[in-house]
Amino acid sequence: MSICGGSSPSPKSSNFGTKASYASGSFKFEILHTSKKSKARVGRIHTPHGIIDTPHFVAVGTNSTIKAVDSATCDALGVQLMFCNTYHLIVQPGREVIKAAGGLHRFMHRKNPIITDSGGFQVFSLAYGSVADELKSRGQKKLNNTVVKITEEGVLFRSYRDGSKIFLTPESSVEAQKDFGADIIIPFDELPPYHIEKADLRASLDRTHRWETRSLEAHLKSPQNQAMYGVIHGGLDSELRKISCQYLSSLAFDGFAIGGSVGKTKQEMFVLLHDIRPFIPEQYPLHLLGIGDQVCLAGAIPEGIDTFDSSFPTKAARHGHLMTHTGEVRIKQASFAKDFTPIEEGCSCPTCMQYTRAYLHHLYKAGELTFYTLATIHNIHYMVQLMAEYREKIYRDEV
Amino acid sequence: MSICGGSSPSPKSSNFGTKASYASGSFKFEILHTSKKSKARVGRIHTPHGIIDTPHFVAVGTNSTIKAVDSATCDALGVQLMFCNTYHLIVQPGREVIKAAGGLHRFMHRKNPIITDSGGFQVFSLAYGSVADELKSRGQKKLNNTVVKITEEGVLFRSYRDGSKIFLTPESSVEAQKDFGADIIIPFDELPPYHIEKADLRASLDRTHRWETRSLEAHLKSPQNQAMYGVIHGGLDSELRKISCQYLSSLAFDGFAIGGSVGKTKQEMFVLLHDIRPFIPEQYPLHLLGIGDQVCLAGAIPEGIDTFDSSFPTKAARHGHLMTHTGEVRIKQASFAKDFTPIEEGCSCPTCMQYTRAYLHHLYKAGELTFYTLATIHNIHYMVQLMAEYREKIYRDEV
Repeated sequence: MSICGGSSPSPKSSNFGTKASYASGSFKFEILHTSKKSKARVGRIHTPHGIIDTPHFVAVGTNSTIKAVDSATCDALGVQLMFCNTYHLIVQPGREVIKAAGGLHRFMHRKNPIITDSGGFQVFSLAYGSVADELKSRGQKKLNNTVVKITEEGVLFRSYRDGSKIFLTPESSVEAQKDFGADIIIPFDELPPYHIEKADLRASLDRTHRWETRSLEAHLKSPQNQAMYGVIHGGLDSELRKISCQYLSSLAFDGFAIGGSVGKTKQEMFVLLHDIRPFIPEQYPLHLLGIGDQVCLAGAIPEGIDTFDSSFPTKAARHGHLMTHTGEVRIKQASFAKDFTPIEEGCSCPTCMQYTRAYLHHLYKAGELTFYTLATIHNIHYMVQLMAEYREKIYRDEV
Repeated sequence: MSICGGSSPSPKSSNFGTKASYASGSFKFEILHTSKKSKARVGRIHTPHGIIDTPHFVAVGTNSTIKAVDSATCDALGVQLMFCNTYHLIVQPGREVIKAAGGLHRFMHRKNPIITDSGGFQVFSLAYGSVADELKSRGQKKLNNTVVKITEEGVLFRSYRDGSKIFLTPESSVEAQKDFGADIIIPFDELPPYHIEKADLRASLDRTHRWETRSLEAHLKSPQNQAMYGVIHGGLDSELRKISCQYLSSLAFDGFAIGGSVGKTKQEMFVLLHDIRPFIPEQYPLHLLGIGDQVCLAGAIPEGIDTFDSSFPTKAARHGHLMTHTGEVRIKQASFAKDFTPIEEGCSCPTCMQYTRAYLHHLYKAGELTFYTLATIHNIHYMVQLMAEYREKIYRDEV
């Protein structure tokens, strides 16, 4: 198969503790240091739009913007990788608009690297609801009417904006991601529901592997300086996860991402990551999809995860939950009404350098839009700094 | 009466066409040039927080922020005077908080000058509704239940936030404005309803004059480097307006503002301004309250109005109406979906320098908060530039 391994190092090798690197075209991953204490590593991903220092927090800008913070500010805050959602961008503004703009970077005026997903996650998660929804419904929740038909070819769904039908396939997802021109792209996959029998999960995994293979084939026809990460599936089944690692690492992906359900508790996720990590070749960058709270980072970084995307820090900001090294400042609390200190002493973000908790408390209570911007800037800056601190700790073998 | 004229030049003199100036403490108004074509003039107001070049558009930051744009950005855009509303700030965060912060500038981290109103306008306008509401109701609309009692002493009203009763008097309004520490403050006045008999309007005017006199007395007990502008009332009655001009200019105000109803059409307002202008001593800065659309500016600047406050440009921005020299760009129109030019060619605002109409159209349609910020930045910058252009034209005697 033309898309197998190729010139990449043997995927089965495992040599944590030594330097390694992967390169393909203008994409390169260097491991600068691996901790003596864990599998945590400091690395550097080179892309056509610049470097991503890892471990790195990937801010989520679903509709081609972080909510309440513009691209230039986001670049300036040091967000080296932003996650945009193909599903949303296909629906609005549409592929043609972004293509006509000259790609997503130019459309949204972003200088730093971008990663886009395939749209698969949204198609299925909007249909099934979140894992939390599923847990509440005890598996009784079925596909809603946004997904019209799922076949081997792909998924037919309705636009949430105007009800028009959109057919998403591995090939059309990759084509869209080519139009967008993100530095890192993701193959089309199936997101099985959380409640699923093993046989169905296996069938879903096999289809995901076929879809990812088709995606990679479509990608490699015109790589366009983009890297593609294979998405490891298999739900909570450790055996299926290992099968997925082994199958995907036999293909010519430039990195890997862990997708699908990873557990209903953080502990379950940590165990899963620990179990499957040896089966993912360590010279590739490894992304954990949709995870980014501080507890998960603390548990996942020692397993050698390099990048994390999550809307948690920006969503928390809009709810008035401001992140600090000593816990969240819940800014709506009356105790902050006359607190003329910054969100966190010593923080160098534009919000903390200029505004006090008292002022932010006031803006929050007054429902001012300015609050969302200032709070989001702080939480993004906090995550950027937190990851820089992790890199320092890994260099010192403390993580 | 201790608060009469004092050392200020004779208020009755009128010498448009020559340079004049007014100074009191750290407050000074210089007229740099008066047009040969009209009463339009270029001036400079000196305040403890810096200079205001006039004519100047005063951005409205009701709750101590422009909606969707933070103070530092607002300073950087060249907004030399911001209008904050005492009524809203008394209700939330409250006088004590702003006083404890060391005043409004420190609370909101604003470097440039601030003007606060007295709260009178909001107390009455929230009670009566806007002039437009009144016109619709044909004068049948009565005080709603937010105003509990109006007496010679002041107005008892309920907080819209928690229903608590607040008693606002000329003295308490000035005290609040002392706590806030704005560079320019406004005496407490009564806003009569639009539909009113002449005798009632006269009675309201007399009360307003008594309240403004009490406000000025309270202010002069501790001027604290603040300037106070007398507010000229008299509704649409030219005779009462002239009485108001004459009475207020006999007192030691540092400038004047035109308040109350100025007409239901722009033409009616222009006629009123033209009629009363000779009765306002021209060496003082003159503010037009609550007016700031482009047609009104074009008609009012030639009457020698120096400053204008209006929430129109920022509200228009949030509704997707983006200002240009050739008219509004209504960004939601489908024709902008693939328009990769800036809102206005040649505009040097951060929005136009970085983002296209197509991107803004997309953000608007996607309901992204980032849209509000980028749109507001553009409209504020537009107004700042427009006023700079007016100053140039006045220097060239073209206005």
